[in-house]
Amino acid sequence: MKDFITLRQHERLDDLQYKGLHLIQDPSIFCFGIDAVLLSDFATVREGERVLDFCTGSGIIPLLLSVKTKAKHITGFEIQKQSVDMARRSVLLNELQERITIIEGDIKDLEGVKEMGKFDVVTCNPPYMNTGGGLLNPNQAKAIARHEILCNLEDVIRATKKALPPKGRFYMIHRPHRLTDIFTLCRSYNLEPKRMRMVHSYIDAEPSMVLIECVDNGKAMLKVEKPLIIYETNEDHTQEILNIYERKGI
Amino acid sequence: MKDFITLRQHERLDDLQYKGLHLIQDPSIFCFGIDAVLLSDFATVREGERVLDFCTGSGIIPLLLSVKTKAKHITGFEIQKQSVDMARRSVLLNELQERITIIEGDIKDLEGVKEMGKFDVVTCNPPYMNTGGGLLNPNQAKAIARHEILCNLEDVIRATKKALPPKGRFYMIHRPHRLTDIFTLCRSYNLEPKRMRMVHSYIDAEPSMVLIECVDNGKAMLKVEKPLIIYETNEDHTQEILNIYERKGI
Repeated sequence: MKDFITLRQHERLDDLQYKGLHLIQDPSIFCFGIDAVLLSDFATVREGERVLDFCTGSGIIPLLLSVKTKAKHITGFEIQKQSVDMARRSVLLNELQERITIIEGDIKDLEGVKEMGKFDVVTCNPPYMNTGGGLLNPNQAKAIARHEILCNLEDVIRATKKALPPKGRFYMIHRPHRLTDIFTLCRSYNLEPKRMRMVHSYIDAEPSMVLIECVDNGKAMLKVEKPLIIYETNEDHTQEILNIYERKGI
Repeated sequence: MKDFITLRQHERLDDLQYKGLHLIQDPSIFCFGIDAVLLSDFATVREGERVLDFCTGSGIIPLLLSVKTKAKHITGFEIQKQSVDMARRSVLLNELQERITIIEGDIKDLEGVKEMGKFDVVTCNPPYMNTGGGLLNPNQAKAIARHEILCNLEDVIRATKKALPPKGRFYMIHRPHRLTDIFTLCRSYNLEPKRMRMVHSYIDAEPSMVLIECVDNGKAMLKVEKPLIIYETNEDHTQEILNIYERKGI
């Protein structure tokens, strides 16, 4: 890790307590949650593969994937200049510039996406709320991270299609109430849903998140995995979550 | 209950141990499973409503709904003559002919479906296997009940659309691996998935069945419910399953 790095106003430097990783975040924009951790665990990335992370924000997913996998290279793609700048400094801070590139761009600009070439894997933790749904955040940067303001689900899926070769894999975490939108859009772009896992806070609770794997040009056959439970009834994390974080006693 | 009823070769008379219901089944065709019980419990049927059950087989779902709900009338629709004949005798046996009608017909015959008029609710426990998937049963009647030989998922959904008025409700149980097919087809016929519940044998197992509610012309917003678990780890039924069967110690 580099000795020093410039932090701007409102920013903070978080020790991820995971393989020495540190991350610059700005709480006035967005701080990553368990979603990013679960997605980077759910995604299968094989040795030597090239990964593209859309809506990368602070770059948390590229950072996690760089230490969790043997990906050859990971590209984080983000529209908000402030986040791009933070993510780039986090990459430098962790001395990961050989494996991670942060690109500023708009996924609606398909020519720009095309210019990056093809990737083996695309990941995305997109804004969950379709515009109009949920409470709009008065802070514009925060709202962009949470609501489909600058990009919607179809924009993400269309850009993913552009970035994947046949048999390329797409991993996304989203809200269960959008499942019909997700499945119909993915199939309409020939990104076939192949694996799904519901995430529940407690075993007897409705799922709060859903993890999805799609394969470009895949055969129609969805494997639904056992539920992923976050907490035991006593509010301790479950063993599986502890294993995902790879440390005990969070 | 009537004093006697004719049973044909291979048929047996089962006491459902539920509100005095008895059912004629032929094990060489198909015997109902927990699917039918779960579907008739998942379906919301209000007082005075008219219900149509496609692929009714032995008529198990109309029979269960007739005692579980205050439906005004339930129509069972079935293509296999032998099953139609059994279902009709079960209706007579239970003296339910005022509330249940069994119709022999093909759901691919949309004119025939249209002639029945509109229903408030459609239920269906269809053949699960898309032709080619699963082991084809050498017994033709059994194969028809399990595989998409005489009707496929789209036939069921198309006929359901024909039978429902705007805001009419559709309840189906199916296999999780068909979820993308189910969601994309339902939405393409404007039967919006509104509620889903996964059914797991054990809490730490993949789901084996999925219960779906769709609403004709409904708003896009899926409510995913907590998992329905069939067995405790000690292989006793869970309390919820016992409640569904409304009897203890199965």
